[in-house]
Amino acid sequence: MKPELELVTTGAELLNGHVVNRHAHWLGGQLDVLGWRLVRDTTVADDPAHLREALRGALARVEVVVVTGGLGPTSDDITRNIAAEWFGAGLVMHEPSRQAIVRIYQKRNKPLNAMVERHALVVDGAIVLENRQGLAPGEHLQKDVKTLFLLPGPPREFQGVMRDHVLPWLREQGVGASAQHHVFQTCGWGESDLCARLDAEGYGNLRVETAYCAQPSRVTVRLRECTGQAPDFNDAVSMVRRICSEAVYAETEETIEEAVVREFKSRGLTLAVAESCTGGLVGQRVTQVPGASAIFRGGVIAYHNDLKADVLGVDREVLAAYGAVSAPVAQAMAEGARRITGADIGVSITGVAGPDGGTAEKPVGLVYCAAADRQGTEVREFRWGGDREVVREASATMALDLARRLAGRA
Amino acid sequence: MKPELELVTTGAELLNGHVVNRHAHWLGGQLDVLGWRLVRDTTVADDPAHLREALRGALARVEVVVVTGGLGPTSDDITRNIAAEWFGAGLVMHEPSRQAIVRIYQKRNKPLNAMVERHALVVDGAIVLENRQGLAPGEHLQKDVKTLFLLPGPPREFQGVMRDHVLPWLREQGVGASAQHHVFQTCGWGESDLCARLDAEGYGNLRVETAYCAQPSRVTVRLRECTGQAPDFNDAVSMVRRICSEAVYAETEETIEEAVVREFKSRGLTLAVAESCTGGLVGQRVTQVPGASAIFRGGVIAYHNDLKADVLGVDREVLAAYGAVSAPVAQAMAEGARRITGADIGVSITGVAGPDGGTAEKPVGLVYCAAADRQGTEVREFRWGGDREVVREASATMALDLARRLAGRA
Repeated sequence: MKPELELVTTGAELLNGHVVNRHAHWLGGQLDVLGWRLVRDTTVADDPAHLREALRGALARVEVVVVTGGLGPTSDDITRNIAAEWFGAGLVMHEPSRQAIVRIYQKRNKPLNAMVERHALVVDGAIVLENRQGLAPGEHLQKDVKTLFLLPGPPREFQGVMRDHVLPWLREQGVGASAQHHVFQTCGWGESDLCARLDAEGYGNLRVETAYCAQPSRVTVRLRECTGQAPDFNDAVSMVRRICSEAVYAETEETIEEAVVREFKSRGLTLAVAESCTGGLVGQRVTQVPGASAIFRGGVIAYHNDLKADVLGVDREVLAAYGAVSAPVAQAMAEGARRITGADIGVSITGVAGPDGGTAEKPVGLVYCAAADRQGTEVREFRWGGDREVVREASATMALDLARRLAGRA
Repeated sequence: MKPELELVTTGAELLNGHVVNRHAHWLGGQLDVLGWRLVRDTTVADDPAHLREALRGALARVEVVVVTGGLGPTSDDITRNIAAEWFGAGLVMHEPSRQAIVRIYQKRNKPLNAMVERHALVVDGAIVLENRQGLAPGEHLQKDVKTLFLLPGPPREFQGVMRDHVLPWLREQGVGASAQHHVFQTCGWGESDLCARLDAEGYGNLRVETAYCAQPSRVTVRLRECTGQAPDFNDAVSMVRRICSEAVYAETEETIEEAVVREFKSRGLTLAVAESCTGGLVGQRVTQVPGASAIFRGGVIAYHNDLKADVLGVDREVLAAYGAVSAPVAQAMAEGARRITGADIGVSITGVAGPDGGTAEKPVGLVYCAAADRQGTEVREFRWGGDREVVREASATMALDLARRLAGRA
């Protein structure tokens, strides 16, 4: 048996814009830890022909298939019928599941009807998997070398039956390879930068799975050992660490704001912000981290120039001479944030986020970030491509990175 | 041609627990409006055999297929190769796309390398679809009756190319059923509140498709005409409008922050914020809206009490007597924001976002929002369930709603 699994998800609401399908995301993470792989996720509407075709296709490709959704009592709940067809059996009432439903309704003082009892219908010959979170049990169907699991669709029920029954079964098969993993969080380099620098050192010759996940000004690099290639995996980890050290801020599942909170906390430092075009985004990201209050003082959203001058104390002559989007103003904002809040480090952002407001001299995407501590102030200029959201996210990330670097020298 | 479409998504990160796949959700909603249906979403890893099989399967079942992801420059970006195989052509460098990349790199003062230029490789014979949000263009391949679109994977780029090119093409085919739609944006009522109040008036008897999409303190209600049931659809729209008028802030695809910017702009008003537990989230949301500078002055992130007192001018005795999370402090913060920024309306938020910091008297989820204008200040108390993110999002939404209501009376 190969440790590969396909997921088939059924539900019209997942395909018409009403609900985000998170099953693949959750299951993929669980399988990864077990050394199993989710190789395909197929989502189809509650239509017998579509579901039948998707199920047969999956069972032709892999040995283990999980179907989720369509186990309710209404006419669009067709999963058990399609599974019974494949299994070559009929449906039967599963008495222990029906009794459980009766008890739940008695407890809630609600009248039971035949429709509700249909939740307890299962394929004749299935191993029934108790659902402690809901009414419809899961089912385990074994036919020759093929294994089919039917699971309820609501995420809590899906995850409950998975945890109680399916994940233990997968673990028992003893086929999951325990591949090594490693993650690098980087910021400041683009995905192509990273690849080009690694390739220039012969990274491409190493047998290792590498995945890049890019967000504005941030790239996560994930390495996974290929079967039997532990030395290459170790070489790859060393090579990324050496070549990308300038850009790497963590080797864990950590966001840049989490890294900032952790670093500042460990050094007993405090942070303040002065934000123009990001409008509060840096503060919002820092305060997403539970416990941020230990390091974050707050700051000023100086969107209008009056606030830059009146609240942060930026010299009006400097504003007039250089304009709000300039290195001297970024510097004065960071220093002002530090001064009025009493924080150890102040960071600032001023820029043209777009889509309007750009000029030939100061185009959309031009941003200055600064970070000030008692030793002085560092200013950086950026020229981002992308839309307003990208410019803002990338700028906030680089401001946080600047704060982190300054904390390191403090 | 049937108005049916399949989506094939590629990316290892979508199947190993790292990223939630939101493409089907977004696309499904867009197609629904056009009268097209997303009949299947297949997600596979970046593996040639899997992608080839998924693509061929989709093209065998429907006439229009969209593939997203795998158009980057690295070795795991294989979509254009697999598509070229099916199309029976090779890859060529698309000179206008390459030139666009060169211009972007020149603007950013970054050196260009051959790896980056690979973004501009397209299938020979493809209609190239400009990507205004990123480097890799989309492609439109037509072979007999089959239409294949290749789209970049990052959501912003996927949505941009879809909006610019693919959705207009689908509309032009003239095959989508034209069911009537209507949308209501509400805040302040829960999903069950909404349903219960509508059901109490007999809403359940109307033949109309109704979908509720809930976010913290915000519910979008979408109505769709059932075939041949136009009178019921019209009755349903009237009923929701009448019964939910207190909660409805827009009957368009508008966020609450967009509604605030629009309302303030039309009345010539300005806004300022004073944020404690939300740490800049209200400012960040308002400044997401292009053109926010016409109405937004800025404000203070008063995370630490010193900033509430020293910058916003909240009386230290009031802070000591009532605590930072209290109605009098929320009121003083909103008034302080207005005073120091010169804005017409100041809004404030102070609360316990959790997970720590709650007490018996002031539990996690307790939040005060206030809005001040020249006539006075309104304060509201909330007790939210949910985690830190829910508490913060819900609070920011209600603060924005309070600002919008005050603007209406100004």
